[in-house]
Amino acid sequence: MTSQSTAFDVYDTTLRDGAQQEGMNLSVADKLAIAPLLDELGVGFIEGGWPGAIPKDTEFFARAAKELTLRHAQLAAFGATRKPGVRAGDDPQVRALLDSEAPVVTLVAKSDIRHVERALRTTGEENLAMIADTVALLVGEGRRVVLDAEHFFDGYRFDPTYALSAVRTAFEAGAEVAALCDTNGGMLPDGVLETVAVVRAALGPQGRLGMHAHNDSGCAVANSLAAVAGGADHVQGTVNGYGERTGNADLIAVVANLELKQGRALLADDGLRDATRIAHAISEITNISPFARQPYIGASAFAHKAGLHASAIKVDPDLYQHIDPTQVGNDMRMLISDMAGRASIELKGRELGIELEGRSDVLSRVTNRVKQSEAEGYTFDAADASFELLLREEVDGSRLAYFDVESWRVIVETLPGRPDEANAEATVKLTAGGRRVVATGEGNGPVNALDHALRLALVGSYPEIERFELIDFKVRIMDAMHGTDAVTRVLVETMDNGAETTWRTVGVGPNVIEASWEALVDSVVYGLLKAGVERRS
Amino acid sequence: MTSQSTAFDVYDTTLRDGAQQEGMNLSVADKLAIAPLLDELGVGFIEGGWPGAIPKDTEFFARAAKELTLRHAQLAAFGATRKPGVRAGDDPQVRALLDSEAPVVTLVAKSDIRHVERALRTTGEENLAMIADTVALLVGEGRRVVLDAEHFFDGYRFDPTYALSAVRTAFEAGAEVAALCDTNGGMLPDGVLETVAVVRAALGPQGRLGMHAHNDSGCAVANSLAAVAGGADHVQGTVNGYGERTGNADLIAVVANLELKQGRALLADDGLRDATRIAHAISEITNISPFARQPYIGASAFAHKAGLHASAIKVDPDLYQHIDPTQVGNDMRMLISDMAGRASIELKGRELGIELEGRSDVLSRVTNRVKQSEAEGYTFDAADASFELLLREEVDGSRLAYFDVESWRVIVETLPGRPDEANAEATVKLTAGGRRVVATGEGNGPVNALDHALRLALVGSYPEIERFELIDFKVRIMDAMHGTDAVTRVLVETMDNGAETTWRTVGVGPNVIEASWEALVDSVVYGLLKAGVERRS
Repeated sequence: MTSQSTAFDVYDTTLRDGAQQEGMNLSVADKLAIAPLLDELGVGFIEGGWPGAIPKDTEFFARAAKELTLRHAQLAAFGATRKPGVRAGDDPQVRALLDSEAPVVTLVAKSDIRHVERALRTTGEENLAMIADTVALLVGEGRRVVLDAEHFFDGYRFDPTYALSAVRTAFEAGAEVAALCDTNGGMLPDGVLETVAVVRAALGPQGRLGMHAHNDSGCAVANSLAAVAGGADHVQGTVNGYGERTGNADLIAVVANLELKQGRALLADDGLRDATRIAHAISEITNISPFARQPYIGASAFAHKAGLHASAIKVDPDLYQHIDPTQVGNDMRMLISDMAGRASIELKGRELGIELEGRSDVLSRVTNRVKQSEAEGYTFDAADASFELLLREEVDGSRLAYFDVESWRVIVETLPGRPDEANAEATVKLTAGGRRVVATGEGNGPVNALDHALRLALVGSYPEIERFELIDFKVRIMDAMHGTDAVTRVLVETMDNGAETTWRTVGVGPNVIEASWEALVDSVVYGLLKAGVERRS
Repeated sequence: MTSQSTAFDVYDTTLRDGAQQEGMNLSVADKLAIAPLLDELGVGFIEGGWPGAIPKDTEFFARAAKELTLRHAQLAAFGATRKPGVRAGDDPQVRALLDSEAPVVTLVAKSDIRHVERALRTTGEENLAMIADTVALLVGEGRRVVLDAEHFFDGYRFDPTYALSAVRTAFEAGAEVAALCDTNGGMLPDGVLETVAVVRAALGPQGRLGMHAHNDSGCAVANSLAAVAGGADHVQGTVNGYGERTGNADLIAVVANLELKQGRALLADDGLRDATRIAHAISEITNISPFARQPYIGASAFAHKAGLHASAIKVDPDLYQHIDPTQVGNDMRMLISDMAGRASIELKGRELGIELEGRSDVLSRVTNRVKQSEAEGYTFDAADASFELLLREEVDGSRLAYFDVESWRVIVETLPGRPDEANAEATVKLTAGGRRVVATGEGNGPVNALDHALRLALVGSYPEIERFELIDFKVRIMDAMHGTDAVTRVLVETMDNGAETTWRTVGVGPNVIEASWEALVDSVVYGLLKAGVERRS
């Protein structure tokens, strides 16, 4: 337990420290959806939250134990050392860490004597006892323990002996790793390198050191690398650099630098090759727009604009790229490049079983329509079903139509004090299977009511739609500075419970209801197409 | 000219290299508006563009000569060394640099022999002659010359002798500075430090070295600091880190680190104290949303959310801040969320002018209500106005009410083929100023229609609301796996055009319309409160 190993930990804290980001509010379902993506990335540890302190984190660990199957990562519960003056086993917060059943527990502890005295209001000695007791209790119960030494660098500068004693105490009680935290994020790389190297030497063969960096100086990635150069073999960070203030170290950038520039192999199953997709999928769940300039995985990270660059890239892409973008699952993009568009549409068509080679007219029309539609707010990389319908329309010359809509209307009404009644009612008029149908559906909101009315209108002619279930619904307001006049985009995910397949469609409109209607109609049409249903008229 | 001085250059390239950013398109007027802001920041050099190559840059320099009065900075024109096989004085691109009348000229030159041969298609010898001739011509015409040694680090690794000879040639011809460019942005700080130190030593007392970093490895700021540690005394970068791919070095972060952490004085008139305002003003002109997590100047850079942090900050703000935010013109903010404890609520109350010290009952009620509400989907760190209304309700014992809502209803209708008609109609029934009002509003969507109806119903009693304008509207579906049954959260930002203030409110409901209604009502109530309006009844 106290011997130094050659292993290297990639420790993700997106779900705990990342969630401290301003404007981020992860539900238990969000966390349960993000954890498998982190596992797929290949990190060794997923810090899930603070059970016992935050009710929804307690629930996350309870559900994770039942619902999550992780291939590589171990779940870590975050918490604090026991309170001053109580036994560790009697501290309810420590009990909650055990009750979480997480195999790893990460304990935050003070290592800056000023914080011990001024914020914690106890003695240096009692703080060390709190560390020793809590670590020992958890290790005794079979948990792997990481110590997060809060304010380590500031504390070390002020009183190196005390800061070091906090780390040493944790190792002696059985902690596996001590992560040195630059809690205020103000360190620069040279100071990190020097401190970690001195601490590493002072500890001798005892324990492993980690780095927990924040980006307040704009150096979180470099500080993590400096710590590794100084002898750390555990790095903490978050996907997309989420976190309080300026965020935590961007874990993907740290790992990509270590793997691609320093030749280490850190992620399970070569997960770095999926980093871009995973980082973007996580930003869909957090609903925080991805930052286009994010190193390695940003949409602009390999996008070239300068004419100077473009001509050199034609000679050799390596002349203007620091790595091959496929190493992180990203793509080189030439901005303003019609040819790239046609080539990818041809490839996408082939993927869908629609051969477009030599059909230059169709390719041009589809390329132009995709460009035009994306400028209007559509996004096809997140709505493959809508793209396929668009492509088939251009190939066949007309839109696939199982029914003809005449009109629809939705009414939402509220009476204060009666919030729980179904308050939306939608009426849809359409012709399907040769019959004109008028159907009315109720719901707890306008989109729900429209969905019910549309199904009711169609089920007589197309009973197959009873198998379709709406399983996800996302709204984004584009160009938000225009207030409610802005364009709204809706993404809908539908499942065919018979075939166990899912598909995603997109709608865009001047408001959420118009956009939802378009996405709902596409969703039904695509589902019927894939179910092999013929138009009935 | 060739002696090393103790001066230090802060060289801004926002208007040239920054403008290569995807999605950025600066007009001449934009550039003329940004330049004085950079001057106010106190940089030494403002690189304005490439006259002769880009028509609007030619125009910028022509107008700048007449219209701009800079207090500190000198304008630099960017361009290339002469073409192979022509005299420098006969190269129209070089002539355009002279014609720009910029006192400084920055010449990009190849220093990587592979680029000379493969992209430029000339010999190493001719490339050196191109550098020597062009620098000598410009210096002879009284210009200060900076050499941008493109791909210097990659070139130096491949052929150090050639890379060094490019720099030495420039100095011998009279260049003042050679900026070593990490053009592909893939360097890490240890490599930069080592290379700059070796080059500095090899050059002896000759010339000054600069650093031009890109952020592809997430290390642009650290790489700039590493170069300074290695002997560079000139740093290039852009405001807000704008630039191609992942952007250039964030100049404000580089300078803030050097000034605040290494004790240098670099900007004229202590400009760092205005950095936040200037960076945000520039993002207004570029029309690129500021990145909240931007080090030093981001909106979130000194925003604290974790309860753990708040209790320590109550004791001493320095415990959780790496610098005093006023040093860069930023502010500390407390964010309210379910991670907040009583301490953050007390501090937030103080920020709002509501003293809660000793009011333990109110603190408990508010803390519990925040936790409960966030569990239901509310988020107060993004909606400070809603939090203030909640806090006042708990302090006063009842909700502030300017009007009493009886009911509302909204109808959305569509007829295919007539998409452009206003298709939503809302009716609101309420009592305000002692009168029962029934008002109907139209809109291009249900929220827009509701907003119109609510205003129409209130304007008779509260004409102040004519000044309020809805400027932002965000929708988030929570717990999206339940499809349209999910909880919807809406954030609304409103501006008082009289007072030029903005505020944000939140609503949560079973659908977007219910949630919007709650946020709209809060928005009006808060606006009236802040405008000092009394309830009229």
